[in-house]
Amino acid sequence: MLEIAEHPFGQPNFTGKRWPLADVRLLAPILPSKVIAVGRNYAKHAAEFGNEVPSAPMLFIKPSTSVIGPNVPIRRPSGIGRVDFEGELAVVIGQPVKNVSAARAASAILGYTVANDVSARDLQKSDGQWGRAKGFDTFCPLGPWIETSLDPSDLALRSEVDGELKQDGRTSDLVHKVPELVEFVSGVMTLLPGDIILTGTPEGVGPIDDGQQVSITIEGIGTLINPVQNI
Amino acid sequence: MLEIAEHPFGQPNFTGKRWPLADVRLLAPILPSKVIAVGRNYAKHAAEFGNEVPSAPMLFIKPSTSVIGPNVPIRRPSGIGRVDFEGELAVVIGQPVKNVSAARAASAILGYTVANDVSARDLQKSDGQWGRAKGFDTFCPLGPWIETSLDPSDLALRSEVDGELKQDGRTSDLVHKVPELVEFVSGVMTLLPGDIILTGTPEGVGPIDDGQQVSITIEGIGTLINPVQNI
Repeated sequence: MLEIAEHPFGQPNFTGKRWPLADVRLLAPILPSKVIAVGRNYAKHAAEFGNEVPSAPMLFIKPSTSVIGPNVPIRRPSGIGRVDFEGELAVVIGQPVKNVSAARAASAILGYTVANDVSARDLQKSDGQWGRAKGFDTFCPLGPWIETSLDPSDLALRSEVDGELKQDGRTSDLVHKVPELVEFVSGVMTLLPGDIILTGTPEGVGPIDDGQQVSITIEGIGTLINPVQNI
Repeated sequence: MLEIAEHPFGQPNFTGKRWPLADVRLLAPILPSKVIAVGRNYAKHAAEFGNEVPSAPMLFIKPSTSVIGPNVPIRRPSGIGRVDFEGELAVVIGQPVKNVSAARAASAILGYTVANDVSARDLQKSDGQWGRAKGFDTFCPLGPWIETSLDPSDLALRSEVDGELKQDGRTSDLVHKVPELVEFVSGVMTLLPGDIILTGTPEGVGPIDDGQQVSITIEGIGTLINPVQNI
């Protein structure tokens, strides 16, 4: 681990301090001003709940207070029914942009990390809008770090609960690809450094409960692990 | 206008500098870390689009990049169909809170301002989730200031477009009242100083177009005026 001075945007300045990875506690790699998520962006995941793939990316926003880092417990409130993990590729924005084209999207991106779009499935259905179901504190684990040199177009994404494989997808199955998403979202709202676009989850989502451990791995990035704790 | 040192939370320190109101340009009175909005929280507004009042507050989030201040144009993008104004009472949070009870809600509130929850009505219907329709830059005018001494329980709320009265409601018709909303939202997510809860809009919403001016007045607070500009 090499320490950098100030923020990770632009060319980082290394201070010269370094530590073994085993000696540090990783926090969430970014505190975003906003987390924009895309619903139903893998056809087989849309189908597993009987939904169509929307023609335009379906956007919703998770509050920044839902973000946690690796190994921090996902806290599952009592009385809200089923809570699911959803493994996702997260795009981390690198500079302020509005109306960036898909062809220029790469210039707007700092890198990629792994996300878990934790979702209170029963509330998601009953509420209609997803602000509550996907907005609880701890419902947006991010990490373990931001990979800045990565082609996101065809990466394996695997989610495990207590070591059992649940999701086994590829980002090549994204309905709306990363460059298109950056164009679409930045056509709506200004994106700021550190903002996150969650690109959607493949099929295989399922419930998590007290004492379990969710582990999401994306090829070329790493593994995001979080325990689950009922509160 | 009295200048304060630093932020408006807690007991403000006045620097002694003062200006006539006419000589200053008012910005958005707060830059929130999140804007949490409540859908269908006046029965007659829910009914005007044929919707039921939800049993639990229906939450969605507007991006902080949608916030503008008084007199700044609401920029209406081409090709997105109908765009509506929605006059709303906005609650401004005063301190970090989680799980605050309705009885203690007042202690979490800094004050109140006027909001316009601008909504791309056609996209709202076609998208299903409202992140895009309510998330465009400039779609969250706030102002003209934060009123810190106010009972929000029965205030007149009037919206005009080019001087024509469109909404004429009272906050006493809120289905879920302010203290209950603070309890509900803070039961889901940590609220931070400056965070905004938009409490919903009464009936009478309607389209706005290039060159028009929207004016929203809440008794005891003031009037929020924004022109509309097609882009």
